[in-house]
Amino acid sequence: MIQKGLEGVKICESSICYLDGINGRLYYRGIPVEELAEKSTFEETAYFLWYGKLPTKSELEEFKRKMADYRELPAEALGILYHLPKNLHYIDVLKIFLSIHGSMDGNDEDLREKAIRVASVFPTILAYYYRYSKGKELIRPRKDLSHVENFYYMMFGERNEKIRLLESAFILLMEQDINASTFAALVIASTLSDLYSCIVGALGALKGPLHGGASEKVPPMLEEIGSEDRVEEFVQKCLKEKRKIMGFGHRVYKTYDPRAVFLKRVLQEHFPDSKLFRIASKLEEYIVSNKIKNIYPNVDLYSSVLFEELGFPRNMFTALFATARVVGWTAHVIEYVSDNKLIRPTSEYVGPMDVEYIPIERRDENG
Amino acid sequence: MIQKGLEGVKICESSICYLDGINGRLYYRGIPVEELAEKSTFEETAYFLWYGKLPTKSELEEFKRKMADYRELPAEALGILYHLPKNLHYIDVLKIFLSIHGSMDGNDEDLREKAIRVASVFPTILAYYYRYSKGKELIRPRKDLSHVENFYYMMFGERNEKIRLLESAFILLMEQDINASTFAALVIASTLSDLYSCIVGALGALKGPLHGGASEKVPPMLEEIGSEDRVEEFVQKCLKEKRKIMGFGHRVYKTYDPRAVFLKRVLQEHFPDSKLFRIASKLEEYIVSNKIKNIYPNVDLYSSVLFEELGFPRNMFTALFATARVVGWTAHVIEYVSDNKLIRPTSEYVGPMDVEYIPIERRDENG
Ligand SMILES: CC(C)(COP(=O)(O)OP(=O)(O)OC[C@H]1O[C@@H](n2cnc3c(N)ncnc32)[C@H](O)[C@@H]1OP(=O)(O)O)[C@@H](O)C(=O)NCCC(=O)NCCS
Ligand SMILES: CC(C)(COP(=O)(O)OP(=O)(O)OC[C@H]1O[C@@H](n2cnc3c(N)ncnc32)[C@H](O)[C@@H]1OP(=O)(O)O)[C@@H](O)C(=O)NCCC(=O)NCCS
Repeated sequence: MIQKGLEGVKICESSICYLDGINGRLYYRGIPVEELAEKSTFEETAYFLWYGKLPTKSELEEFKRKMADYRELPAEALGILYHLPKNLHYIDVLKIFLSIHGSMDGNDEDLREKAIRVASVFPTILAYYYRYSKGKELIRPRKDLSHVENFYYMMFGERNEKIRLLESAFILLMEQDINASTFAALVIASTLSDLYSCIVGALGALKGPLHGGASEKVPPMLEEIGSEDRVEEFVQKCLKEKRKIMGFGHRVYKTYDPRAVFLKRVLQEHFPDSKLFRIASKLEEYIVSNKIKNIYPNVDLYSSVLFEELGFPRNMFTALFATARVVGWTAHVIEYVSDNKLIRPTSEYVGPMDVEYIPIERRDENG
Repeated sequence: MIQKGLEGVKICESSICYLDGINGRLYYRGIPVEELAEKSTFEETAYFLWYGKLPTKSELEEFKRKMADYRELPAEALGILYHLPKNLHYIDVLKIFLSIHGSMDGNDEDLREKAIRVASVFPTILAYYYRYSKGKELIRPRKDLSHVENFYYMMFGERNEKIRLLESAFILLMEQDINASTFAALVIASTLSDLYSCIVGALGALKGPLHGGASEKVPPMLEEIGSEDRVEEFVQKCLKEKRKIMGFGHRVYKTYDPRAVFLKRVLQEHFPDSKLFRIASKLEEYIVSNKIKNIYPNVDLYSSVLFEELGFPRNMFTALFATARVVGWTAHVIEYVSDNKLIRPTSEYVGPMDVEYIPIERRDENG
């Protein structure tokens, strides 16, 4: 039997995430994700995912200080920034810097410590490359700001009162069981490779349009639709052309993705007049009420509209997703290697057997 | 049921490779690998894996010309070479350059064309970084040499009459069904990410010591053993400490790895006096005849001795492996995405449910 796509195949035990695809519920270590998105912070939720418990006040303070201390890039990595081409995709930029880190970082240290260090440095890499490639001066990290505030500040040189919305989105995106990018990280981890290699592999998987890359495809798609009254026409055209509608469908959720529900409410409240938001809502309404392919909106439909409204460049959307998901990737790697088993499946061979190696002089030029 | 390690799980049909682990046989598209290692060339075997047929004389000529034309790095990539730290691992160096390529290369082109381009450039990246990091002048690729000859020439600035041995080793290492690195490539490909992301992920998996990274651990291990008469003591110590013996054991081969058998014969003939070779042979003899853990030598045991005897630096061994395996990775990606399905398994949740989000003020500082 061929288990293509490994749908429903359980590859390990895990106590990180429970995803109820039938009822559209998502829990991080037993807490509903909506509650964390509302009440918790990036740092606290990351701590919770990595350490398996909510931090006390003093633990959280120390942890936040540590993350702030880890923000700056090592000199060796900064050294190449100004020599990079200016049109790289942000996911590729992350891969480049993390590959350098991978060689610089010793093998001796605690994996969790490394995970914290990597997650702390994501915003710096993205903001530095953003400003360098736009010809703007770099803005150094500020230790007095939280992880997400500092990110925004390093990007745009100012504060934003709506930054809490980005933080909620990051909390929602942080973890999602053994999704494709997390699985890529685990396959790599299972060879006992270094943590940076796992993350770099996961970044590559996230980049694909069937996964996190969908977020960069959503705004152009909404613009292609152009207005709410052209939704039906667009969907019918997609169905006819067998084209996937970006921001819809999910391997596990067979109903509303709770993260999409949360973010829709956020957008409704804060950006009710956003044109992209209005087209996205209409698209959802049409697809769900007409039971098109039985698909529902997924998180990318609305996270991408939020990222757009907060002013981030579109080719950074997948990297924003990664800035959150790196916590989930590393939490799973740490858990998996604590009881490691090489992940090495096989295939069903359907090719020819006993093929003769015909010497090149005897091969038919016309065959 | 949990399918940890996905042992024996068939994730797709494939007509690239047949691996008979019981009888220790390996076939590429129906031809025994030993026959190819003896009679074929890097280019011809790569063509065979990518196109599914042996090339005619004129097809092979054209193909070799193409690979030679693709050897040089684009200027944007060369631009960063001189700004890289000099102590990077070669696998990380490949990841960095291929991530840059990934952003520069359009999405429009045929996947096979990209695969050929990537494979062609591996030796250039390795040789350039080798010479740069050692403070030597770069040697430009030579179009009049074959893939493997040119690699050696770019590394050392001279020819080597034993280059055919390296070519045979590369042919043996080129392809091996859905091993961990190939699987990492497929997981990434299944999101419809770009080919470079697949290869970069695969490189990360290959780096691990349970996979291609074992090749870099073998020579120090053989030196640690020190002499043939200390083999028994070493093995017993490993068993007591539950330490894995590098270059032994395999998920699929439950007998001799045919690649190890081939390379052992090569070494026996060409480097019979190599000290590392003599210790490796003795190690094999002791482990097999005493049925230690029922393990047998795998390809890394002898490929690493060969790489050593040909003068390559040890921290390049995994990257040498990759220089061959990139053909198999890309052949599998091309085959898989032609009938794509997102690879997205799941886990068995064993953590707590209904955990309360206790506000931070109420969390016990001592709990
Ligand atoms: C996420 C996704 C890859 C899950 O795929 P999956 O579990 O492998 O399921 P399939 O792609 O086989 O989908 C099952 C059926 O629904 C259809 N379908 C699924 N998502 C669809 C979408 N977004 N638009 C149109 N049709 C869709 C498929 O075409 C298929 O129909 P068929 O049986 O008639 O061929 C898929 O829903 C998708 O491609 N979505 C769009 C990209 C996206 O938004 N990704 C972000 C996920 S967070
Ligand atoms: C390749 C490898 C990961 C395959 O592993 P696997 O299919 O998951 O099998 P396991 O690691 O579970 O091995 C099964 C048993 O054999 C033992 N074993 C396997 N390879 C061993 C080795 N090289 N040295 C010592 N014991 C070994 C395991 O410890 C295990 O014993 P246990 O059941 O008493 O715990 C494993 O053989 C290994 O780690 N080899 C060394 C690294 C290496 O050379 N890798 C290159 C492969 S090309």
